[in-house]
Amino acid sequence: MASFHHVSNPNLLELNGDVMYHLGLTHSAEEPEKLAKLFGDVKFFVTGGSADRITKFASTVAKELGIETPFGYTISTIGTTARYVIYKVGPVLLANHGMGQPSVSILLHEVTKLLDYAGVKNTVYIRIGTSGGVGVEPGTVVFSSAGVNHQFESVHEFNVLDRIVKRPSICTPEVYEGLSEAAKQLGFAHTVGKTLTADDFYEGQGRLDGAICEYTKEDKMKFLHAASEAGVRNIEMEVRLFAAFCHRLNIPVACACVALLNRLHGDQVLSSHETLKGYEERPAAIVLQFIKNKLAQA
Amino acid sequence: MASFHHVSNPNLLELNGDVMYHLGLTHSAEEPEKLAKLFGDVKFFVTGGSADRITKFASTVAKELGIETPFGYTISTIGTTARYVIYKVGPVLLANHGMGQPSVSILLHEVTKLLDYAGVKNTVYIRIGTSGGVGVEPGTVVFSSAGVNHQFESVHEFNVLDRIVKRPSICTPEVYEGLSEAAKQLGFAHTVGKTLTADDFYEGQGRLDGAICEYTKEDKMKFLHAASEAGVRNIEMEVRLFAAFCHRLNIPVACACVALLNRLHGDQVLSSHETLKGYEERPAAIVLQFIKNKLAQA
Repeated sequence: MASFHHVSNPNLLELNGDVMYHLGLTHSAEEPEKLAKLFGDVKFFVTGGSADRITKFASTVAKELGIETPFGYTISTIGTTARYVIYKVGPVLLANHGMGQPSVSILLHEVTKLLDYAGVKNTVYIRIGTSGGVGVEPGTVVFSSAGVNHQFESVHEFNVLDRIVKRPSICTPEVYEGLSEAAKQLGFAHTVGKTLTADDFYEGQGRLDGAICEYTKEDKMKFLHAASEAGVRNIEMEVRLFAAFCHRLNIPVACACVALLNRLHGDQVLSSHETLKGYEERPAAIVLQFIKNKLAQA
Repeated sequence: MASFHHVSNPNLLELNGDVMYHLGLTHSAEEPEKLAKLFGDVKFFVTGGSADRITKFASTVAKELGIETPFGYTISTIGTTARYVIYKVGPVLLANHGMGQPSVSILLHEVTKLLDYAGVKNTVYIRIGTSGGVGVEPGTVVFSSAGVNHQFESVHEFNVLDRIVKRPSICTPEVYEGLSEAAKQLGFAHTVGKTLTADDFYEGQGRLDGAICEYTKEDKMKFLHAASEAGVRNIEMEVRLFAAFCHRLNIPVACACVALLNRLHGDQVLSSHETLKGYEERPAAIVLQFIKNKLAQA
């Protein structure tokens, strides 16, 4: 391997092989073409929190894209399932990313190395998920323009050795515009806005029902209204790092998260189980339509 | 419910019921004794990253504590498996926590509410896992005295609304001394020391083999030596929050993570697969011995 398309790490050029430990996949200098054969046609990487949802979506992608399953076979996970479930269905690589930025960070490092070893470039990375809406009605799919911190800045800040590294957290307009178009085709309510990423579901998102709560409902509402005024349309736990990582490596990136509730109206999810299930399927349906549109254009 | 033992959230006293959403378990005001019947005898909560490892450990706990499985039955997960796998085996509650502090944070909030609703107090929380050692030999089990940040301070800092909250991250001496005693009984190398918790496996831990690397090997070694001098004995991704959460709520807490390598000597894991498997089983074996010792004393 003479160089990388996206990966930014000169140390890797000196290695004789590389173990993507949490994926359970290996690049070997003795078989440099192995990963290219297996992953060379990947054009989309779709990831979401839950393993169950990704498993279900892998089957839907195969069916809807008309990818034939050999008689006597079924779709199966690739690599190890100890940490993530991973599927390869035609041009689509799918994986669950667990909960929170650290979990998605490991996946991004390893998938990005994998695709670069496979010689693939400009794979579109899309996160699908659920979120709390801010000033949007339940069922609305929010396409993130940027991930923001609790000060509403589009910056992902983290510790590397004794330094604090800051990276812009920005999604790719071409991708979220394509997703908006797909949402329009399917008739789903959608919007583009900033996404606040928290490192916790309870205190970090200002919920009142965690095991610890040191603020009042008034404090919470003041913060949520400030977020809304700053252009935040939803709150979740992964977008900021996801967008920052991809932006740093020139990877086209978008995030499509459905709002299960409007946090400006309360913390409780009041929709019925059936309605919620329908909401949860919207981001995947939109991404599938987006993929179909892209493949039809190609 | 008139009051809580550990939970610190007056809002919960006003609720008619509470859904521990990510566990898939519910507290109902109409059946206030339900959770007490199911979980009232829990004395230990053991959690680790991997679902497979926790599943295996649940069976070992049942066998080693002589907890009889009714004829025609087997151990089964409780609640939902969408996010975590959870087991209840006699006095031991077990769950995997996924990777990273945000994922473990959600589990801690919900398990702590669950146990408080069940009327249980002083359950000992123990994280088991793997880690990179700092100045300790591979196979050494490190019992954390405290979780530290990249400045080597025993403080967990995070965003809550527009505030930055700082909590001391300190483990309970009585618990890690009990674990040290159990390790001694089993003949496993062990030590007590500070644990550096990172929010990533690659850049956050100064590895040279991520998809992005913006520092040199010399920068890395300088940081690792500074960590060692500050009393850090291992690096992983959960201890700081785990200890801070428990310390805040007066929950007895310890973390037992085996070092798979000594980061001062390199980043590559050079031990054989068999040797590593043996290492990985040590924290669980020690916790099991600790539980046996405690039950024998009771």
